[in-house]
Amino acid sequence: MPAPFSTLDAFRNVLALSGKADQGVVDAAAARNGQLTKPPGALGRLEDMAIWYAGWRGSARPEIAAPQVIVFAGNHGVTAQGVSAFPADVTAQMVLNFQHGGAAINQLARAAGAKLSVHALDLDQPTADFTQGPAMSEAEVVAALATGWNAVADNSDLLVVGEMGIGNTTAAAAIATALYGGAPENWVGRGTGVDDAGLATKARVVGAGLAANPGRAGLEVLRCLGGRELAAMAGAIARARSLSVPVILDGFICCAAAATLEAECAGALDHALAGHVSAETGHARLLEALGKEAMLSLGLRLGEASGGALAINILKSAIACHSGMATFAEAGVSDG
Amino acid sequence: MPAPFSTLDAFRNVLALSGKADQGVVDAAAARNGQLTKPPGALGRLEDMAIWYAGWRGSARPEIAAPQVIVFAGNHGVTAQGVSAFPADVTAQMVLNFQHGGAAINQLARAAGAKLSVHALDLDQPTADFTQGPAMSEAEVVAALATGWNAVADNSDLLVVGEMGIGNTTAAAAIATALYGGAPENWVGRGTGVDDAGLATKARVVGAGLAANPGRAGLEVLRCLGGRELAAMAGAIARARSLSVPVILDGFICCAAAATLEAECAGALDHALAGHVSAETGHARLLEALGKEAMLSLGLRLGEASGGALAINILKSAIACHSGMATFAEAGVSDG
Repeated sequence: MPAPFSTLDAFRNVLALSGKADQGVVDAAAARNGQLTKPPGALGRLEDMAIWYAGWRGSARPEIAAPQVIVFAGNHGVTAQGVSAFPADVTAQMVLNFQHGGAAINQLARAAGAKLSVHALDLDQPTADFTQGPAMSEAEVVAALATGWNAVADNSDLLVVGEMGIGNTTAAAAIATALYGGAPENWVGRGTGVDDAGLATKARVVGAGLAANPGRAGLEVLRCLGGRELAAMAGAIARARSLSVPVILDGFICCAAAATLEAECAGALDHALAGHVSAETGHARLLEALGKEAMLSLGLRLGEASGGALAINILKSAIACHSGMATFAEAGVSDG
Repeated sequence: MPAPFSTLDAFRNVLALSGKADQGVVDAAAARNGQLTKPPGALGRLEDMAIWYAGWRGSARPEIAAPQVIVFAGNHGVTAQGVSAFPADVTAQMVLNFQHGGAAINQLARAAGAKLSVHALDLDQPTADFTQGPAMSEAEVVAALATGWNAVADNSDLLVVGEMGIGNTTAAAAIATALYGGAPENWVGRGTGVDDAGLATKARVVGAGLAANPGRAGLEVLRCLGGRELAAMAGAIARARSLSVPVILDGFICCAAAATLEAECAGALDHALAGHVSAETGHARLLEALGKEAMLSLGLRLGEASGGALAINILKSAIACHSGMATFAEAGVSDG
């Protein structure tokens, strides 16, 4: 079945119609949590995660059986401005590495028991250089949103999306600056490892991007300053919402893409947890803007869905406790 | 083979003889890490963990195939002072719950692919009330150390130890106060959930414990203020060191027990990572004193090895990346 939108407005309508967690199930899961053989609250955030997940899945005693990790790859015209420590060819080289099983995300997805798929989006057609005007046409961004939408399996019960795209921390910083304001310097970071001069270049390029694309909001920010892999992540996150599939967000670029959904439609990320806070400068600030507290803080800054995938086992463990533990009554344990 | 000690002094000798990481392997693992298909440092602390683990295991490309989780349970005479929100009977009830698979640690160990064993130490003979004198005789603490020592499987390649023992956050706070000084109020916390009056009682009891056991250091602190399950954890951690098996420490009580090893023999915990920082007040302070940065911070305060077990999958993921990823040369990716 094709994606149910062929324009940005139609995608906006899909977003606005997306579902809610089941409050009755949330209440039932919270009641179950209170009866499990542990002091109240002793599993900390694992308890909150489990109840949250239960609500989205519509089961007070859910399981995670089919987590899915999707990596989207795209190329960026803005690399012409010298914003990355790596050549743009690396995007395609890394896609091959994903396909051959040699990248970090291959190992992390396997360790999480998740199915991994990789979608390369028109790598031979970089987006336009956003310092000269919009990165994508409406047709281009809608096609990328649809690629993401269609990449989510109907039977997934947890989704992690990530990206590969030389130059895309610059696009993400431009998105964040457009959505939340502040100086570009607050949002740009070293990405794959640029030096101080590279960092100054990125800030200048972000400023030029905003000047070339003034007055944009919501999904228009994604179109004008993002890239194909960012739009695909947004499309996949929206599809997960329509399927009541919880999402674990990855790093700065993933969160920037997701933030355009939230900017377009408040609450559009209620089905998403922040998997980690990365070492990329703007990520902590972006999570704060989104009202999300990261599950992990281990200094990752790789992208590829790596931080989100690393967090899958934490959520799985939370669900294992919630759904597998005995109650005080079942175990014959005094409850204090 | 019985434990190679029958006195505290003999155990001290075992500690002093314990091994070191292989620096040549550390160097080889670091060199491999630098060639993997990712920007330098992009996997953050996962890279450090993998190199550290490699050094202890003596392999630049190690695997984690046989992680072991051990829970030790003991009872505490100090519960007579009203320091817990739960009756002491709960220790034995929870041991049954562990044996029947109903506790959090059963789910967490399974989610980590770890083998779980449970050792109840003389539950019908609580330690002496340490406000009246030493909690244990030398024979008692040595027996508990030996139980821990013997519980570690020869083929384990990762160890997590934890505990169950109503009253043992009070014992742990007493140990921390004795080792590091400061007011008892700095080290006591709510444990399973005592109220403000209970918290004040715990601080008073810790103060009374120190007054009744003055001038103790190192393993004498463990004997006089600890408990059987704490001594067993210390014995297991020491055994892991002698086998070059890395350890992930659990929460406040585990770390207090471990701290007596470090106090006795500086460097005795070099083979140990801090799995998490718990919500128990003194844990963050104790980790700082030990110079350990926690892998996770999720507000857990359950004990049972739960936080350490939750961290196993993080370390496994680090090793999976380190040992499984392709190098730039293997993958044909430009390295910047």
